[in-house]
Parts: sequence; C-alpha cells; structure tokens
Amino acid sequence: MKLGIIFGGLSYEHEISIVSSIAIKDVIKNHSLSFIFLDENRDFYLIPNDKMKSKLFSSGDYKKCDKLQLDKNGFYTKGGLFSKEKKLEIDTIVSTMHGGDGEDGILSSLLDFYNIPFVAPRTEACVLSSNKYLTKSYAKEVDVKTIDYKYFVKNEKVKVDKFPCIVKPVKLGSSIGVSVVNDEKELEYACDVAFEFDDAIIIEPFIPGVKEYNLAGCKVNGEFEFSIVEEPQKTDFLDFDKKYLDFARTSTAQKALVDEKIEKKLKESFSKIYNTFFEGSLIRCDFFVVNNEVYLNEINSIPGSLSNYLFEDFNKTFDGLLNSLPTKKRVPISYEYVNKIHANKGK
Amino acid sequence: MKLGIIFGGLSYEHEISIVSSIAIKDVIKNHSLSFIFLDENRDFYLIPNDKMKSKLFSSGDYKKCDKLQLDKNGFYTKGGLFSKEKKLEIDTIVSTMHGGDGEDGILSSLLDFYNIPFVAPRTEACVLSSNKYLTKSYAKEVDVKTIDYKYFVKNEKVKVDKFPCIVKPVKLGSSIGVSVVNDEKELEYACDVAFEFDDAIIIEPFIPGVKEYNLAGCKVNGEFEFSIVEEPQKTDFLDFDKKYLDFARTSTAQKALVDEKIEKKLKESFSKIYNTFFEGSLIRCDFFVVNNEVYLNEINSIPGSLSNYLFEDFNKTFDGLLNSLPTKKRVPISYEYVNKIHANKGK
Repeated sequence: MKLGIIFGGLSYEHEISIVSSIAIKDVIKNHSLSFIFLDENRDFYLIPNDKMKSKLFSSGDYKKCDKLQLDKNGFYTKGGLFSKEKKLEIDTIVSTMHGGDGEDGILSSLLDFYNIPFVAPRTEACVLSSNKYLTKSYAKEVDVKTIDYKYFVKNEKVKVDKFPCIVKPVKLGSSIGVSVVNDEKELEYACDVAFEFDDAIIIEPFIPGVKEYNLAGCKVNGEFEFSIVEEPQKTDFLDFDKKYLDFARTSTAQKALVDEKIEKKLKESFSKIYNTFFEGSLIRCDFFVVNNEVYLNEINSIPGSLSNYLFEDFNKTFDGLLNSLPTKKRVPISYEYVNKIHANKGK
Repeated sequence: MKLGIIFGGLSYEHEISIVSSIAIKDVIKNHSLSFIFLDENRDFYLIPNDKMKSKLFSSGDYKKCDKLQLDKNGFYTKGGLFSKEKKLEIDTIVSTMHGGDGEDGILSSLLDFYNIPFVAPRTEACVLSSNKYLTKSYAKEVDVKTIDYKYFVKNEKVKVDKFPCIVKPVKLGSSIGVSVVNDEKELEYACDVAFEFDDAIIIEPFIPGVKEYNLAGCKVNGEFEFSIVEEPQKTDFLDFDKKYLDFARTSTAQKALVDEKIEKKLKESFSKIYNTFFEGSLIRCDFFVVNNEVYLNEINSIPGSLSNYLFEDFNKTFDGLLNSLPTKKRVPISYEYVNKIHANKGK
C-alpha cells in the first residue's frame, strides 16, 4: 500500500509529533511511505523521505518542500504557471499527529469530509479521549473505573480536600502543564500553570508508588489484537525528556511481570474502552492498579510512534488494521418532503 | 455583520436543513446574509438570496450557481480562465446544517481548522449531542437525569424486559428510524429499521402521556439567555410532517403553563448541559418531566430554524451570541526539545 504519514499540527505536541513520525519511518516495513507535514500556519508540505530529520522542521527549511492542498479524495500538489495540480498517490493516511489538530478530532473530520481513508480514531473517539473529563464520563458508561476527580473551569474557585494531588489541564497530553501538589500553598501556582494551557483542569488524588501498566491494541477483522503489557519505567512523571523519548521508541519493550488475572482485567477494560468507537485506530490505554482493581488513567488515541515497541510483531498487527478500517455508510439524499409540499401546492 | 448561512450536507436531514435555512432568511433582521449550500457530493455553492426556494435544490438547479472552495479564512469563488479566485465577504458563518456533516462535528472542525468564526457548537459539543449514548453519559457527569436505556450495536442480541419501549438509532434526529414497540413481536422489525440508519441503537421505556418541555438558549457575555418554555404540540411522535414543519417555524410559540419550580429546574438543567462545552451555539434542550423530576430527552445542538419561534426577541439574543463567540487560544510552536538534542549531539 501507499501510505501517507501525517504529522505536525498547531499544537503543544507539534515537536513530539515530528519525533514520532521519524521513528515510524523505519518501523513500517511493508508499504511505501509519503510524509505530509502540517505546519503552524496550517499549510501542508510533502517531505521527501530522505529529508525526514528533525532539523528540517526546526530550521524552517521544510518550507522549500512542495506545498500540498487538501481536497476531495486526497492531497494535491499546487499547480504552477505551467504545471497542473497533481494528486499525491496514497491509499491511506496514517496519523502521528499527537495533541491538537490530530487527537482532538479536527484532522479526522477533515479526512472524513474529503473522503480519504485513514488510520486514526474517528472524530467521536478523538473527543472522548482528548478531553480527560469526557474520558472519565465515557469510561463510567462502559463500566471501566477511573480515579475520582474534581473538574474546574477558568475563574472558578478551586477547592481540594486532600493532598498530595495532581493538577492537569483537561486536554493536553505528554504531562504538559501537569503538577503534583503537596499542600494548599502549592495549589494556586499549579492551577495557574495548568490554566496557562487550558480553560479547564481536573484534579485527582496523587497515589505515590501506584502500579502503572500500559497496553496497546486494535481490532483486526472484528477481533482484538493486543500488545504486551508494559510497566512503564518509573521516573518522576514530570520528566519531560523521558516522555519525549517515548515518542522515538522503536526497540521492543520488556513484558511486565503481571499477574494473569490482572492482565485479563487490563484486556477486558481495554476492550470496553475501545468498543466500536475506536475502530480504525491503534490506541494505548494507560492503567493504574490499586488493590487488584484496574483503573483507566488515560487513553492515548494516537500513541507515540504508534506504540510499535509494545508489539511482538507490529507490522502484522498494523497490516491487519489497515485492512479493517471502518467504512462510512453512504447516505441517500431525498427530496421527498419538498416534493410533497410542491405537489400539495399544485392541487 | 455579513453572515454566511451554511446548510445542506450529506445527511438524512439534508432536506430539513434546506427548509430551516429558508425559514431563517426572513428571521435574521440586522445583518446581510449569504447562503452557502453543501450538496450531497460535498461541493459548496453560493445561492443568491432571491433563489432561496426549496425547488432550486430538489430540481438540481442549484448547480448553475457559483461553486465555492473552502480554504484558509473563508470561502472562495473558483477562478475561471480569465478571472482570479475571490474571497466571499463574510464575517461569521451560521450553521443550519442539521444532522450529519453539521451536528456531528465535521463542519465545526473544518471551520475551526480554516480559522473561520462560526455560530454552532464546537466539535466536542457536537459529538456529545449528536450521539444519544454519549449524551446520556455526559448528562450523568454534569448531574442531569436521563431516562434509563439499553445500548446495542449491530449483530448484538437485543433484549428488552419491559414494553412499551422506544427504539432509536443512536445518532439520528427528527425521529428518523424511531419506533414505539408494544411487545416482543414488534421488536425485531423496529430494530431492523433503526439499524438501517445506524450501527448502534438505544432502547428506552416508552412513557405514554409524559409531559414534554422544550427550552432553548445560549450564553451571551457569560450569562445565560433563555427562550420561553414550550410544551410541544402532542401528535403521534412518528408524525414526520409535523417534525418537518418545526424546521420552518417562524411565528412565536405559546408559553407553556408550567410550574415556577419546574421552570427553574428546566433552566438549571439546561445550564448544566450547556456548561462551557456549548459556548458559541444556540441550542434547544428537550426535557421530560416525571413526578416533578426533570429528565433530559435530547440536545438539539443546531435546532430547527434556530428555535427562533421560542424567543420573545430572537434578534436581540442572536446578536448577543454573535458577539460572544469563543476564541481559540493561539498555541505557540517551539522546537525546544529538538534543539536540545542537536545541542547535546554537538558536544
């Protein structure tokens, strides 16, 4: 297949999206790849494979590459004075656009609208996973536990009963704007930081030393395919560099030593979350385990470097997913009612 | 202001969207209007005001109107051999695109992406209101009651304990695909009908003679402005023509005789639902009242003819809303991490 890897975007995760797409370049084995970069001005560029280096973007040199126009059924190179516009030959788009423009549903809506097949969560699933408040509400509905929380919008009086707690902007990923707060004194500053990034925040109790497990997967022909379960390396969760490095990972992770019953519960919770909403995407769910109970921490609906490092045979699963993309029902347009009115008027 | 009314779309509600936009034409008083039609091929057309008649669309004659191209900051007429493309002069888009392409978040994502101000729910709010399952989950989170329900996806075994019940496709509005089911025998057919339109359905108990109240509103400068409360005219809820006529309504509705306490509860429930998620939109919430308790039935995030007929002074509220549209935070793009890696490599 001819795949178009789309990345960048006007978001706080712009940079890690670049890192992630570079990682993916050597991971996907069975397809030819084109790279489509969305810059901060929301212009699309076609990046030649041999130029896929982070410096191309930080230097602004990507602007010398061909611009692309998004339109019906695909991306087109702009026609010049003596050349006609040309359609970029791709069968399917694969999104590694983390954060805004990608995980918030904007890109999925665009691709849906312009009738371009894609590997990424559909708009609904993006909304459910990119907003932590809505993730919790959705998780309850599908019967998956989450940690208790409080939700505050800008200018609302923030009140917390128990410390330590974690303050998080409601929408950002990659620990951006997140703080652990040990007492009342630290609270105001942490909230100011979080509100710098977002108009709403959630505050959860911080559970020191909690067991964390990550599990990725997708549906292939209606059946779940799971990755191994990983216990993410414990570092201070604020370690930004470590988080960034996650997006560049390509070597296979170590399987967590996890009780069989817990592993089963993790997979059950994953399946409930994935449901029908996440079809067409490969996601990673990050869980906490407290007293043998599984709690969803967050859904990474476009995980860093597509969580390739968690799969024993990533290419097999990925190829299966490529062949299991949901199709949109063709809606018949009728003018039944309008015609009826006109027929009655004619009487 | 120069407003662009956008309507049509590839959806089961294509026709009523046309009816709704025609109704709106004479209702909006203080602004100049342009009409932008999205046809079933997802081409945009600029419809001259004097041609805004339903027959133009049912006959296909709209295709003689100028095509528009959606791009950064607006809509453009396509350039011809001797003419350059020209930007359509509009300040703000107003959506009367009910159903798919409009209420499902696709259009909001497009307008957001291309940086065009608009009156309509943002993508998140669209997703919460266009899917009845997610509406219920969201309502619980904001502490608004809804009627108990069961949720089934295609090919799942449907089981119902109590009759009569209502079977609804999870996403469609305007009673499309909805059936009241009186006993087990009728169930299979009703489910088949609903699954014709959607991949998932919800089934609720049917409460004969339940009190229904509709309330519309929006936030203007951070404060709620509400419409009157209407008790919708009781007809068989399957009366499609009546439903359609609702989209053409322009004469002021009659205020319901409703207890002061109930009216207060309706407004409180509306406010909880609207929250910060629905900012930028004028919505109508349809409620049930059972034993003095208020239950949300559904959120019409782009109600027929913008519910103008429910407002004592629609133009005042609408103009207030036009001046209260949410703005998206400008995200700063940095290459801090990439630069750090390169600096370390140079050491």
